Amino acid sequence: MPRLLMSEIHSSCDPAEMAGLMEDEVFKAFSTYAAIVILKMMLMGPMTGFYRHARGVFANLEDTKFVSSEADKKLVRTDPDVERVRRCHLNDLENIVPFVAVGLLYALTGPELSSALLHFRLFAGSRILHTVAYVGALPQPSRGLSWILGMLVPFSMAYRVLSTVLLL
Amino acid sequence: MPRLLMSEIHSSCDPAEMAGLMEDEVFKAFSTYAAIVILKMMLMGPMTGFYRHARGVFANLEDTKFVSSEADKKLVRTDPDVERVRRCHLNDLENIVPFVAVGLLYALTGPELSSALLHFRLFAGSRILHTVAYVGALPQPSRGLSWILGMLVPFSMAYRVLSTVLLL
Amino acid sequence: MPRLLMSEIHSSCDPAEMAGLMEDEVFKAFSTYAAIVILKMMLMGPMTGFYRHARGVFANLEDTKFVSSEADKKLVRTDPDVERVRRCHLNDLENIVPFVAVGLLYALTGPELSSALLHFRLFAGSRILHTVAYVGALPQPSRGLSWILGMLVPFSMAYRVLSTVLLL
Repeated sequence: MPRLLMSEIHSSCDPAEMAGLMEDEVFKAFSTYAAIVILKMMLMGPMTGFYRHARGVFANLEDTKFVSSEADKKLVRTDPDVERVRRCHLNDLENIVPFVAVGLLYALTGPELSSALLHFRLFAGSRILHTVAYVGALPQPSRGLSWILGMLVPFSMAYRVLSTVLLL
Repeated sequence: MPRLLMSEIHSSCDPAEMAGLMEDEVFKAFSTYAAIVILKMMLMGPMTGFYRHARGVFANLEDTKFVSSEADKKLVRTDPDVERVRRCHLNDLENIVPFVAVGLLYALTGPELSSALLHFRLFAGSRILHTVAYVGALPQPSRGLSWILGMLVPFSMAYRVLSTVLLL
Repeated sequence: MPRLLMSEIHSSCDPAEMAGLMEDEVFKAFSTYAAIVILKMMLMGPMTGFYRHARGVFANLEDTKFVSSEADKKLVRTDPDVERVRRCHLNDLENIVPFVAVGLLYALTGPELSSALLHFRLFAGSRILHTVAYVGALPQPSRGLSWILGMLVPFSMAYRVLSTVLLL
């Protein structure tokens, strides 16, 4: 009898513990939305590359070989559209990375699934709107409001983390 | 009897496993300090926005509408104080994000609480000093030393992670 | 008897639960490679500092005191080599941080160790090659190919995360 119990304890805590986190609904929801916003952020890299090649605008002399038979210093310059995509990418780094970090801790505090989903959906939606507004140069305050909404979600999650586990 | 035991095993490993990580003192301390330094980092965003509006200096043409009745190209320029806050923000990204990532793994290696708290407190303190020194343009080496201290902590934590779990 | 069992349950789920994650082979491998690529990324900071001092090129007026007896505005300028290291550092942030975030979730989905190691090794190798190609200004497409390989790994891991836990 004890032997049986031990094996059950083992199975639910050792390798399955890995899967354990992934059996929690809140953690699954977090993983889904975290993966989505990170993929969205990573796509800014290829988008920058696309604009660089389309406009023939490079940051490094060796890159000009992609469009020129020999290294061409004149192609090493800045372009408004490329810089716009790069600013959007940096803004993603500044906001999506904190969301993922705080969101992980938030998911571990065991919030209600509905409350967690509300946070995750608002954030993902706001950052997709932010990218559309930034790259498309939509009139303000579209980008400003989506940016603010994207900041409020991590602040709300950080508040729950701190009020649940505060240990200074 | 076995039935009772099973339910106890269940309650301590399945949904409560979520909360399980958050019952560990070291992980609670990590969560607290990680949330604090991420909040500090995120506040650089609104601070940049504040300086932009106060100085009337924008990165995008559509943003000039905030202070001008119509889009004004002359407001799309750089300002030393705005750039200073942006450099501080980027430096936070370069240092606080590694702290959070390595700190999570470090907390999972089960260090002594006192040792973990020492790491976390030194890091949080050094980064707050760094921001004060950067935004306030305090004489060097105030910013340099706080930056170095903020680098040593993640290096020390990474050393423990690698010496504990190395699997190449 | 039950008392004994309880203590065993306790020991395998409470403080040891921390170590629990670190007993999983895939998680150990992830921790190892995550620590390595983060350390690599962090070293770009001191490398930037090294080039700044070697070339006498600073971003802040107060920093010129390191090489000049009094603040010297002429030292506040940009230098091609310093900017090259900074671009490499930013590219690391844009690619290594997503790897660490998605890789953590990926490791928790319980992949085969061999498959996980393949992902981690390819990523670490591609990012080290990327840095060598960037800082050394090697002819393209060396940097381009290592960058693309470094993007494919997180995409592949994100695909597994989303196909395993999708909860929208």
